[in-house]
Formats: sequence, C-alpha cells, structure tokens
Amino acid sequence: MFLDAAGEKLIADIFNGELQPGQMDRFKQQIEFILEVDKLKHVLRKTILMDRSRRENSAEHSWHIALTVMVLSEYARNADIDFFRVMKILLVHDLIEIDAGDTYCYDDQGRKDQAEREKSAADRIFSILPPDQAGMFRELWDEFEERKTPESRFANALDRVQPFLHNYFTRGQTWQDNDIKSDQVRARMQPVNDGAPVLWSYVNSLIDDAVEKGFLSE
Amino acid sequence: MFLDAAGEKLIADIFNGELQPGQMDRFKQQIEFILEVDKLKHVLRKTILMDRSRRENSAEHSWHIALTVMVLSEYARNADIDFFRVMKILLVHDLIEIDAGDTYCYDDQGRKDQAEREKSAADRIFSILPPDQAGMFRELWDEFEERKTPESRFANALDRVQPFLHNYFTRGQTWQDNDIKSDQVRARMQPVNDGAPVLWSYVNSLIDDAVEKGFLSE
Repeated sequence: MFLDAAGEKLIADIFNGELQPGQMDRFKQQIEFILEVDKLKHVLRKTILMDRSRRENSAEHSWHIALTVMVLSEYARNADIDFFRVMKILLVHDLIEIDAGDTYCYDDQGRKDQAEREKSAADRIFSILPPDQAGMFRELWDEFEERKTPESRFANALDRVQPFLHNYFTRGQTWQDNDIKSDQVRARMQPVNDGAPVLWSYVNSLIDDAVEKGFLSE
Repeated sequence: MFLDAAGEKLIADIFNGELQPGQMDRFKQQIEFILEVDKLKHVLRKTILMDRSRRENSAEHSWHIALTVMVLSEYARNADIDFFRVMKILLVHDLIEIDAGDTYCYDDQGRKDQAEREKSAADRIFSILPPDQAGMFRELWDEFEERKTPESRFANALDRVQPFLHNYFTRGQTWQDNDIKSDQVRARMQPVNDGAPVLWSYVNSLIDDAVEKGFLSE
C-alpha cells in the first residue's frame, strides 16, 4: 500500500461513491499503481536532452516515443499493425526500471543479470494492479521484450531511434563520454531494421555522418 | 529547422534511402518535430512529485496520464469511447506549453491571455509537421480544449485527477504554498464529473478528507 512521506496510509475507506465493496478493493489497487509509477520520473537514463542541460528520465523518454508513434507510423515495416497497441507497449515498457534501474545498453556487465532483475521488477510492479490488468500489462511488457510481433518490432525500433537522435544531435556527447564506437552503435540499432526499414536507412547514414564529423569513433 | 547547440544545421541531405525527394521533405519535417518537442521536458508545472523532491515537468505529466488511460478506462462516463484517441489527445495536449508555458490553474491573471498565447503556440509548433499531420495534431488539441466529445471529457478528467492526487498525497503542499481553498479545488475539479463520475466522487471525498486533515483550507 502506498504510504506518504510521513508514513500514514492515505488511501482511506472514506470513499462512499458508486462502488461496491469488491470494486472498492479494485479501485484502491488502481490508485496505488498510479501513485507507484510516479517513481519512473526518478530513473535517469544515459541519454541527455537536446539542449545538453541534463540527463533524460525514463518517464520523459516513454512520453517522447509514444508521441513518436503518431509521427512516424507510416514507416513501420507492416503498415496495418495495431498502433494503439504499439503506444501502450511504449508507455509500459520501462516501468520495470522503477526497481531494476536503467541498464546502459553498452554496459556488458550490467546486462548480465538484467533479465533477472527486470523479471522480478515486473512481478512486483504489475501485481500492484488488479489481476486482469496486471496480466494485460505483463503481456505488453513481455511482448516488447520478445520482439516477435510487428507491433513489438516497431515499438523497439522507436525505442532505439529516439536516444540515437539525441546522441547524434548533441554531437555524440554520450558516445564520447562512454567511449562508444560506431560498430557498437550499428549493432545496437539493428532492431530498427526489423521494425522500420526506412528509419534504419536514416540511422545508418547518420552513423556514417557522425563518424565523418568526429562525433563517433570508428 | 532544428539547429544544434553549435548552430550548425544537422539534418543534412545525406539520407539516400528509400525515399523520393518529396518524401524527403516530409521526413525532415517529422524529424524536426520530434527534436522540437523535446523542449516540453523543460516546462515545469506547479505539481510536485510524490516524494516532494522537485516539480514535475509537462512531458512527465503527459506520460503519466496517458498511462492512466489504461488503468482507469472503466470509469469513463461513456464506456464505448475510442481510448486510442483519448491517449493521443493526452500525449499532445500540453505541447503548446513549449511556447506558452504552463499556466497555473489558479492564476487568474495568467489565464486572461492564456487562450491567445496557446493558440499562437499551436500555430507554430504543429506546423513544423507535414500539413496532414499538423492538421491531425491540431484537431486533437482543439478537441481537448473544447471538452465536447466524450473522448475529450475523459481526457480532461484524467488531466485534472492526476495533479489532484499529487496534491492530496503530498499533504497539500502546493495548495498551501499557493493559498488555495477547497472551493477553488472543487470548482477546478468539476470537469472530472463530466468525464468520469466515479472519479469525481472519489475526488470529492478526498477534498473533504484533505480539509479535515488540514491539508487544504476551507
């Protein structure tokens, strides 16, 4: 149950609205979840904002790519996919970071136990919700991770393109700070090809350009 | 056109992918828009995060309420509305704040020219996109503002409930800092009733409780 900063349980049984007792428990779980996910705003990513003023957090990143669905949908490899589902996948995909943290994509050490950490996180966080919704959220997250459906592939493409754009348009600051090479970026971006071939083509030409301009080492 | 921090135009004509020349312009406008909306992450709201550590920004807020659609959809006044559209409305609804800033809902002075400021902002920001998409985004924003469709009413309800929950569960810190009274909060929350009567009932009981606990003055 959500406890406020002073430790007092504040979802009280004071709500005498239209809900029956059973529905009341369901409603509390839903509110509890909405309060819990606020923590994603504290999870910092390696990516920096376009003006380089600070690092981005995972809530901001999730908003950005969910919005991007509306802008770049025409480049999905499969044109007739369920974009509502893509959007839901993207809104949910990073929630596990509340417990597991953001694992830098080039951190080979951190990535070793990443799957395990994230699975435990999913178990805890989604189960705050009523069982039917917990199941739905878990399915969306599993789908994102498995990268098998066309919706998931497009979602993964956008998830990789956005931080790449931040890197390129801040002249590779994060690449340089972390000594990342062009081959690593190209390998990391591979799923973009599965989800959105045109974006992959664009990403590739920007990688070449980044190397040429000295933003990224070969 | 997007200029990076060093002033150099970085969307170069280097992209020799699958796109025709006309499509190329379209693609550039889309990327330009994706870079531009990054600025929403700098727009600070009055709302503070649940742990009271700092103020929330409008990108975080937009993510939070878009996610909330998935959790609270069953409480929409109209059960068979287009929740995909609700989600799109919410992802877009604050973009105008990039130019117009966040106007505090209880700032009567600031609200006088709010509509005008926001209209100019919408004109500039959405027109970065190709015309068809600019029109679609503008429609979503107008729909949100007009509060006439059931989708817009539910979107507005969620947009008001989320900061209210932050206020209540941080024991009314922002209410107290800005000398807000319960009548003002009740008036501000009225649209919740149009969009989600059960949530309105919940909000009302929390307002009563906040007054009783001393988080909010009568």
